[in-house]
Amino acid sequence: MTERDIRRLLTAYRAGERSEEETVAALAKASYENLGFARVDHSRELRQGFPEVVYAAGKTKEQLLAIMQSLAAASDGSILATRASGEQYAFVHPALPEARYDEAARAIYLRREPPLTAPPQDESHEILIITAGTSDIPVAAEARLTAELYGNRVRTLYDCGVAGIHRLLAQEEIIRRARVIIAIAGMEGALASVVGGMAQAPVIAVPTSVGYGASFSGVTALLSMLSSCAAGVSVVNIDNGFGAGVLASKINALS
Amino acid sequence: MTERDIRRLLTAYRAGERSEEETVAALAKASYENLGFARVDHSRELRQGFPEVVYAAGKTKEQLLAIMQSLAAASDGSILATRASGEQYAFVHPALPEARYDEAARAIYLRREPPLTAPPQDESHEILIITAGTSDIPVAAEARLTAELYGNRVRTLYDCGVAGIHRLLAQEEIIRRARVIIAIAGMEGALASVVGGMAQAPVIAVPTSVGYGASFSGVTALLSMLSSCAAGVSVVNIDNGFGAGVLASKINALS
Amino acid sequence: MTERDIRRLLTAYRAGERSEEETVAALAKASYENLGFARVDHSRELRQGFPEVVYAAGKTKEQLLAIMQSLAAASDGSILATRASGEQYAFVHPALPEARYDEAARAIYLRREPPLTAPPQDESHEILIITAGTSDIPVAAEARLTAELYGNRVRTLYDCGVAGIHRLLAQEEIIRRARVIIAIAGMEGALASVVGGMAQAPVIAVPTSVGYGASFSGVTALLSMLSSCAAGVSVVNIDNGFGAGVLASKINALS
Amino acid sequence: MTERDIRRLLTAYRAGERSEEETVAALAKASYENLGFARVDHSRELRQGFPEVVYAAGKTKEQLLAIMQSLAAASDGSILATRASGEQYAFVHPALPEARYDEAARAIYLRREPPLTAPPQDESHEILIITAGTSDIPVAAEARLTAELYGNRVRTLYDCGVAGIHRLLAQEEIIRRARVIIAIAGMEGALASVVGGMAQAPVIAVPTSVGYGASFSGVTALLSMLSSCAAGVSVVNIDNGFGAGVLASKINALS
Amino acid sequence: MTERDIRRLLTAYRAGERSEEETVAALAKASYENLGFARVDHSRELRQGFPEVVYAAGKTKEQLLAIMQSLAAASDGSILATRASGEQYAFVHPALPEARYDEAARAIYLRREPPLTAPPQDESHEILIITAGTSDIPVAAEARLTAELYGNRVRTLYDCGVAGIHRLLAQEEIIRRARVIIAIAGMEGALASVVGGMAQAPVIAVPTSVGYGASFSGVTALLSMLSSCAAGVSVVNIDNGFGAGVLASKINALS
Amino acid sequence: MTERDIRRLLTAYRAGERSEEETVAALAKASYENLGFARVDHSRELRQGFPEVVYAAGKTKEQLLAIMQSLAAASDGSILATRASGEQYAFVHPALPEARYDEAARAIYLRREPPLTAPPQDESHEILIITAGTSDIPVAAEARLTAELYGNRVRTLYDCGVAGIHRLLAQEEIIRRARVIIAIAGMEGALASVVGGMAQAPVIAVPTSVGYGASFSGVTALLSMLSSCAAGVSVVNIDNGFGAGVLASKINALS
Amino acid sequence: MTERDIRRLLTAYRAGERSEEETVAALAKASYENLGFARVDHSRELRQGFPEVVYAAGKTKEQLLAIMQSLAAASDGSILATRASGEQYAFVHPALPEARYDEAARAIYLRREPPLTAPPQDESHEILIITAGTSDIPVAAEARLTAELYGNRVRTLYDCGVAGIHRLLAQEEIIRRARVIIAIAGMEGALASVVGGMAQAPVIAVPTSVGYGASFSGVTALLSMLSSCAAGVSVVNIDNGFGAGVLASKINALS
Amino acid sequence: MTERDIRRLLTAYRAGERSEEETVAALAKASYENLGFARVDHSRELRQGFPEVVYAAGKTKEQLLAIMQSLAAASDGSILATRASGEQYAFVHPALPEARYDEAARAIYLRREPPLTAPPQDESHEILIITAGTSDIPVAAEARLTAELYGNRVRTLYDCGVAGIHRLLAQEEIIRRARVIIAIAGMEGALASVVGGMAQAPVIAVPTSVGYGASFSGVTALLSMLSSCAAGVSVVNIDNGFGAGVLASKINALS
Repeated sequence: MTERDIRRLLTAYRAGERSEEETVAALAKASYENLGFARVDHSRELRQGFPEVVYAAGKTKEQLLAIMQSLAAASDGSILATRASGEQYAFVHPALPEARYDEAARAIYLRREPPLTAPPQDESHEILIITAGTSDIPVAAEARLTAELYGNRVRTLYDCGVAGIHRLLAQEEIIRRARVIIAIAGMEGALASVVGGMAQAPVIAVPTSVGYGASFSGVTALLSMLSSCAAGVSVVNIDNGFGAGVLASKINALS
Repeated sequence: MTERDIRRLLTAYRAGERSEEETVAALAKASYENLGFARVDHSRELRQGFPEVVYAAGKTKEQLLAIMQSLAAASDGSILATRASGEQYAFVHPALPEARYDEAARAIYLRREPPLTAPPQDESHEILIITAGTSDIPVAAEARLTAELYGNRVRTLYDCGVAGIHRLLAQEEIIRRARVIIAIAGMEGALASVVGGMAQAPVIAVPTSVGYGASFSGVTALLSMLSSCAAGVSVVNIDNGFGAGVLASKINALS
Repeated sequence: MTERDIRRLLTAYRAGERSEEETVAALAKASYENLGFARVDHSRELRQGFPEVVYAAGKTKEQLLAIMQSLAAASDGSILATRASGEQYAFVHPALPEARYDEAARAIYLRREPPLTAPPQDESHEILIITAGTSDIPVAAEARLTAELYGNRVRTLYDCGVAGIHRLLAQEEIIRRARVIIAIAGMEGALASVVGGMAQAPVIAVPTSVGYGASFSGVTALLSMLSSCAAGVSVVNIDNGFGAGVLASKINALS
Repeated sequence: MTERDIRRLLTAYRAGERSEEETVAALAKASYENLGFARVDHSRELRQGFPEVVYAAGKTKEQLLAIMQSLAAASDGSILATRASGEQYAFVHPALPEARYDEAARAIYLRREPPLTAPPQDESHEILIITAGTSDIPVAAEARLTAELYGNRVRTLYDCGVAGIHRLLAQEEIIRRARVIIAIAGMEGALASVVGGMAQAPVIAVPTSVGYGASFSGVTALLSMLSSCAAGVSVVNIDNGFGAGVLASKINALS
Repeated sequence: MTERDIRRLLTAYRAGERSEEETVAALAKASYENLGFARVDHSRELRQGFPEVVYAAGKTKEQLLAIMQSLAAASDGSILATRASGEQYAFVHPALPEARYDEAARAIYLRREPPLTAPPQDESHEILIITAGTSDIPVAAEARLTAELYGNRVRTLYDCGVAGIHRLLAQEEIIRRARVIIAIAGMEGALASVVGGMAQAPVIAVPTSVGYGASFSGVTALLSMLSSCAAGVSVVNIDNGFGAGVLASKINALS
Repeated sequence: MTERDIRRLLTAYRAGERSEEETVAALAKASYENLGFARVDHSRELRQGFPEVVYAAGKTKEQLLAIMQSLAAASDGSILATRASGEQYAFVHPALPEARYDEAARAIYLRREPPLTAPPQDESHEILIITAGTSDIPVAAEARLTAELYGNRVRTLYDCGVAGIHRLLAQEEIIRRARVIIAIAGMEGALASVVGGMAQAPVIAVPTSVGYGASFSGVTALLSMLSSCAAGVSVVNIDNGFGAGVLASKINALS
Repeated sequence: MTERDIRRLLTAYRAGERSEEETVAALAKASYENLGFARVDHSRELRQGFPEVVYAAGKTKEQLLAIMQSLAAASDGSILATRASGEQYAFVHPALPEARYDEAARAIYLRREPPLTAPPQDESHEILIITAGTSDIPVAAEARLTAELYGNRVRTLYDCGVAGIHRLLAQEEIIRRARVIIAIAGMEGALASVVGGMAQAPVIAVPTSVGYGASFSGVTALLSMLSSCAAGVSVVNIDNGFGAGVLASKINALS
Repeated sequence: MTERDIRRLLTAYRAGERSEEETVAALAKASYENLGFARVDHSRELRQGFPEVVYAAGKTKEQLLAIMQSLAAASDGSILATRASGEQYAFVHPALPEARYDEAARAIYLRREPPLTAPPQDESHEILIITAGTSDIPVAAEARLTAELYGNRVRTLYDCGVAGIHRLLAQEEIIRRARVIIAIAGMEGALASVVGGMAQAPVIAVPTSVGYGASFSGVTALLSMLSSCAAGVSVVNIDNGFGAGVLASKINALS
């Protein structure tokens, strides 16, 4: 539930469009709604500027739908469920026809009004997403969708790995001037250090599980990014495009 | 070398205060200076807004002094050497009397003019540093010193671990309204998740090596923070107060 | 075989309802029964207050059935087989029609008389089970079934993760007054520390394999709970709802 | 601050022995006292039945003394500082002459009145501490001191490792009848499984860092105990005698 | 190729049953036979007392057959292929009708004459195999088959885990008097230490991948067995029933 | 794009066979071609002597085809896509009929003219590939294909593991005289040390994921090879036949 | 206490040299003696053929002396304390003048009569100890001392690492004919596989902590030995010369 | 013993300068010399082109001296002992006055005639050593000394880390044209990937233990280099400058 939601509730109440009882019930749900198997956190938007996002993995499709419906009913903000399967979407969509599925990002979402905190929609407030390889694109897609739902313009540079550093250097101006950067790489994750050394912006590094053997499903990229010789780089979990998207949105919203 | 440094050089040249030769030599060193054992990166301030910071561990005291002198000569910005021992300071200080030693932070520094990019010095632009325990304070001290040298106001809340959550809840307003937060914790590192759930601001989590046994010198806190159920949290290396300080400074500098 | 079983045997013998030979044979099996591939531990109930529980994973369905039949014949207590597949149940059920399957908990069980050591069935002797998220419910279901078969009342609070700490604080009174608590969480497992800091009761923490990347299939939650800054918290194996249920039952049985 | 402390405060106030101002100030500190570098949690005793315990490692001796003085002034309960060095004690003792040092346990403590929740002082309410070897005794000493300060009778069986299982079997009756057991072992930690299979009581397993090579400073014993084939066993951190002592005290306090 | 094989060759040659050329060719293959994708080691039996054993995993069924045929042609000893699938057997059997499949052990074998080094077939030369649980039986089956093919009598005790130590103590005499023991256990692997403390014989410990979570697919049992407080215990790889069977055979062959 | 490609372009332009515009466009693509999801690195051949090689895992079949077409159009060198599935090949082949599939090596390739840097095709410039077992052959196949596409003669010795060291010693002369050696082994990887001690040549060790249990999918072989007591051995990633092939080609190309 | 000890006791009693009371007391201590901090296992020799061996690390010098005195008084067998420091020896020696210190092996011992189970003292019953390098000698010294105290002849071959395999092959006959082999190596531990492939005897592999970096203090050698491609090799803990010595003695004692 | 050594021996013998007996004894030592604690490998130079190098860590100073004397007497090639302490040098030097100590490299050496296989001493046969930072220089020093003793010209570029990539790009020509490159880096080790992408030469990557926390004493750099997205990069052990120097020498010796 956003500030806007609360204001509308109160206006409707004063205008007699909603009874006192209805209004109280709606506000009571502002904190959270107990579905038994889930306590949907309706105050997250008020508290953090963004609505609760659903982690779909490990939830039954019935649980997922119920939570998304609860969120959709309580807020007019965008709704996002990450790590969702196509099968879950097939179940959710008929009941929530507004829902869309981003296959690359494996996310179900309802695109609605951006948050009040969204930054200006101009070039100087873009979030820049860079990937080391083509195989990192699904993680980038999750970060991109997240950031866009939260009202950000996003620019992407895919397949700029350091083994052909001229591909990266060709983007030097874009990187140097970026406001927030998400750097996504698997294998040895060296992209984060090189970008971190070129950029003035805060860099959010996302290790991916791309690679084999000593890449250890992203652990090597993770440790590498944490040990980066470039300062100003911080790291989120392996393949966590969503987390990077939220953090970038929070930083981009500063003024 | 900062923009300001370059402008001063050019002005002095035009005013005839410096010969052409001197000016060329000074500019030539703008990129980096090769000391043989080190290539001091004089363009970092231009490129990234902050001068190069020296990692003193593993350097001889002669090497450390030479690098700090090279930096001090080339820029009028603050100089910082992290992970420095008292012994290194005892060697550096006579030759660089301006240098000071922060024992808690284990850092040698020269406090000079803040960077041009420094944010306004008011309450709404403070960086908030929270620690879980008293034993985490040395890491906080490094983050604080770094942020202050880069021209930021810093506010600290020490010993707010989640085992007595009322201590943390008592600071709820401060946390909710903060602009950038550095959350520092060892052991299980739960502070990051709880603060991440309360705050609107980006949270930079710093795991510390405080703890024993299954804390694995900070690895557990590190993994815990990376796996945080709260979105908007990113992580830097274990005990890396410096990195958190730089990143917070970069974020705080946005407008 | 319980004390009750032995008393009944002796009574039946004295009453002439069982021959001496039958009685001897029955008592002889009291220690354990050798099925060749298994030595079913019939004295466990006498020794520990609870009958042997079958770990179904890695057993053929024939082995599982034979062991459950041996247990069912030797005792009138409840029978439990954990980590059982639906396929195993389909094989066991026709031969043991009393058997039921709890799909969430993945357990086959025969609910019979509670043990003599079972605590009073009132509110002040409830076991409280808290989960951080919805995806942790299967582990909670195993703990709940175990505790109920051992004669305990159970109360559950699902989806109380620390990222929305108001959901947890809303249950503060319940938590503070609980007699025994099972705290179940994946990802960073911070729930254990926060609950451990709020509760007067012993807290049994169960890490779950919920999460991805740096969660390492529950290892991070495990290490995090072991490193908890709250005292009075102990930990069982990842996803081990059964073990937590047994331990909570043992503690709850104290008077 | 205990309930008893609060009642005394109020009685003294009503009796005119303390002014209103003094009483308010004392109660105000009931929640926590901010020493700058530490927020001493004075409500822990009220909340959890036991006063806050100080983790001395990583604190300066000045910090340690200040925290212990703050605790000693605010409560009449016993005070405990774990992981304390002899050097820290030498600094603390002159200022807190009541303080004692337990060298084996590496703990500084003030033995004062046991908590109101302390169990009856009879044999049937003893906590049983078993170690696998002689080298595990320091961890047992920490557990013992903790439990005794919290008002428990303690019984110890040292050096009962499973390599000479007759030593353990000789104690079978004591183990079977125990109310709460702390089982302490390094190397492969098999003691926990064997005791767990013999006892009716809840077993708190403490892995120790005794051993070399593949013992990995206690990690093998830790994993072994977590994987125990005996149910009813839970585990605390490596060498965490203190945590086991607190948990055993909480369990022993149940009635 | 065994000594017996060589003697027969020479006898046949002297008797004129084989030409010189044939004899030379046969002896030339004595060292090894190069199949291109494999160098079949025909001198292993001469060198080590046992023929080469085929590791079937990762080999195509054609490769497996060719190697087994090469071995079967060159020696009259038993042939063993471990880690073989039923599918591989279905391919091998028509071409080598003498071959049998042990499903529990996942092994294809040709049972032929035992090696000359085989020990007497009496009770005092039995190899004793003990497992902690029923789920460990497949590993025991591999050890048993191996030892039997190498001419040993084997005795098995299944499901003697330490959580019900009376099951193990009931076998005390058998264990104390055994000549060689193979102790097989998953989870925490405590069986090895307890048996190691009871037995006079050398104990070969085999960790199994039975268990979940902190059992780490056998790693915990492995480390636990290596850290055993009982001396005289050595360890082979996880699930390596074959290796234990060979080693036990080598020890049992001593006189 | 190779030097040869550039020379042909210029010749064609001078001869009037290509317009200026066409020539410029072709040269402009020399650096890299941006396909949106990939930046194909056309200058790698110029820069490194070998064209970019495609890592097919994690790419859609459409992406793979587009990249291979881009490479095939821009260069007349051989094209290689590693870690490719049969399904990917089935999609690529119709559009690129020149493409072949090496099933053992799991690679799609277009065999075209060898690079200008290719060494003489005589025996003294062979690359020697040795494997410890038959199961290591797929990795050897990848190394072999790579080296052959880069214009090298290759000699292979399969199944020369150290458990039958006479098989290896029989090749002593070949090993001692080799120019470059690729040593491929799983399990404990001892082959690298033994070969490293016999050879005068640089040895490239490739650990494979062959083995089980404590082999940890190649990690043990990897660590073993890195810790080799023989000097002159270096290591590439687990199962990285391709990387070994490239490196051997670079070394073999020296004169 | 050995069988011999018991017989002597009884003889002395019958001969009137010892009173009944003395005899009873002596026999009563046969099982174990409780020193408070230790339960000295006097029946180990009876049970296992070897007296209890003291692990001196982590014991105070007073504890060590008391245990050694208890053992020396109760048995006439040799006494061994491993991992003992020179400082411990300096304390033990005056009270037990018979004690000697083996500096290389870091062991205190009393050499007395060999056990009744000791094998014949001829060449065909030697234990062969091989080390890969000179730095592995201290572990070999511990194994040697242990085996000798248990009445075995020992033969050593030091510095036979596989990087110069001719040094090992020069000993081929000795290795092939050995009865029991202890193979000791650090770094990659390849010695175990090569010796395991050459020998007919059981091979006990001892990984050592010799090496750096990826040797991980012996872990790589340990994993390598466990993954050995040679069958008939088993492994003891890192640097555990003592354990290898006991196991070899047990095997060598077979007849 | 080199070919040259053997030829000189024979010449001296033919010239009557050495008796037959002396000559035989000298040749007999050609294979290896058994010092009891060490078998000095005198044929290594013949076999591999380089004399045996002594690993001084873990050797007593007496052992070290005896081995170096044995090597110095048997060959006229350079002698090298790595990982040697100043204390060891102080003991060795008086007896071997020719010996020198390289403090940065921690190596004792005798610089004598380069091997016959040494490459031409011109610029086109230089080995290029690049380090990421100043703290990596000791490892570079070990690599440099090794390569120089083996008759190579070496060029060094220190402190070229990727966080200031212009420092590296400034050396682009040198890197592109190098014949063999040793790339040395700690922390995240990204240098190897960037250099690997720029160079035509084989790249030997050396991870160093520089860094803290998630750098894990070089493990992160090691894994990162193994996972490098650049082909043609191979890796040696952490801090193994010596190994890199030998390998580079072997490659550089090719013609």
